Amino acid sequence: MRATIDFYFDFSSSYSYVALPRLARLAEEHEIHINWKPIVLGVIFKAMNHAPPAADTTKGRYVWRDVERSAEFAGLPFKWPNPFPFNSMSAARIFWYLADDDMDRAVEWARAVYHASFGEGRDCSSPDVLAAVAADLGLDGQELVEATGNESVKQKLKQVTGEAMERGVFGAPTFFVGDEMFWGGDRLEQLERHISSN
Amino acid sequence: MRATIDFYFDFSSSYSYVALPRLARLAEEHEIHINWKPIVLGVIFKAMNHAPPAADTTKGRYVWRDVERSAEFAGLPFKWPNPFPFNSMSAARIFWYLADDDMDRAVEWARAVYHASFGEGRDCSSPDVLAAVAADLGLDGQELVEATGNESVKQKLKQVTGEAMERGVFGAPTFFVGDEMFWGGDRLEQLERHISSN
Repeated sequence: MRATIDFYFDFSSSYSYVALPRLARLAEEHEIHINWKPIVLGVIFKAMNHAPPAADTTKGRYVWRDVERSAEFAGLPFKWPNPFPFNSMSAARIFWYLADDDMDRAVEWARAVYHASFGEGRDCSSPDVLAAVAADLGLDGQELVEATGNESVKQKLKQVTGEAMERGVFGAPTFFVGDEMFWGGDRLEQLERHISSN
Repeated sequence: MRATIDFYFDFSSSYSYVALPRLARLAEEHEIHINWKPIVLGVIFKAMNHAPPAADTTKGRYVWRDVERSAEFAGLPFKWPNPFPFNSMSAARIFWYLADDDMDRAVEWARAVYHASFGEGRDCSSPDVLAAVAADLGLDGQELVEATGNESVKQKLKQVTGEAMERGVFGAPTFFVGDEMFWGGDRLEQLERHISSN
């Protein structure tokens, strides 16, 4: 049976962006199916009374540098979006709106949003930017931005975020192979070995 | 010139134990000198008002599992010491006492303490256990345990811990190549590339 990775991410997670090339390589080499699942990590952070390290702390400064270095290591263009972190709710809702019809199209959307935000530093909390990203993919930007107010799309994003929290997700990216959880792109090496030995 | 890695660790850091084989391989392959620098991370945590995730939280449970899996991945025996975390002050003072005479001997000590605590689950906060570990290395356990009260040894540990904090260390293991800081054994891959390209 073809293995499946459940991939929980937030569009505002820089470490998720950085993990994409390695994840793609792994999926290709092992013919693994990736189940893309955008969530709103802020909801989970709030429930857990947790926050990412602030930029003006010792740890925060290191983490920013580490993200930049990791992007370089992954061969990715990198530019911090401004503001950062940004509200990723609309980008995620649009993903789930597209996924309802065509998951491949939704994944294309996810890649395009990541490239726009962390590759080009554009503000993907803005409806105008999201509409422009959509247009570049040949999609109807206005339709997609309007879909962010769609009740079933809102519910879907809430449901997947709740599912992630129930499975123990507390950060992004988080990967599951069955019940085995791996947090961070730097655990894809272990995930790969886990798949190979199971 | 032979490259040097400053390696800051705490004897109670499970992730430092897990990083040892990869660090050793890297040092051998690139003929790098490792500057072993045990510190007391608790002092830094206190100054930063930071604490590692508690074992009974979602993140804490994941981290414990991740440490065990990482040890397996590294080909290391693993058993949680009880208690954990433990007070690593005496083990670190003994390191610095030995280092004053013979750094190689001190590094042997560090490896033996790590093996006793995370490889065999022994309580390396206990003077009896430390004396037994010393005896296995052909050292005088009583002399070493007494040295933990030595004023210059206490000062040395304080000084190195302060130096680590000034350089931006907030967790362990932390590695420096010049001023470039890498936190976590999972960054040794990037550190290796950094060395190769400089």
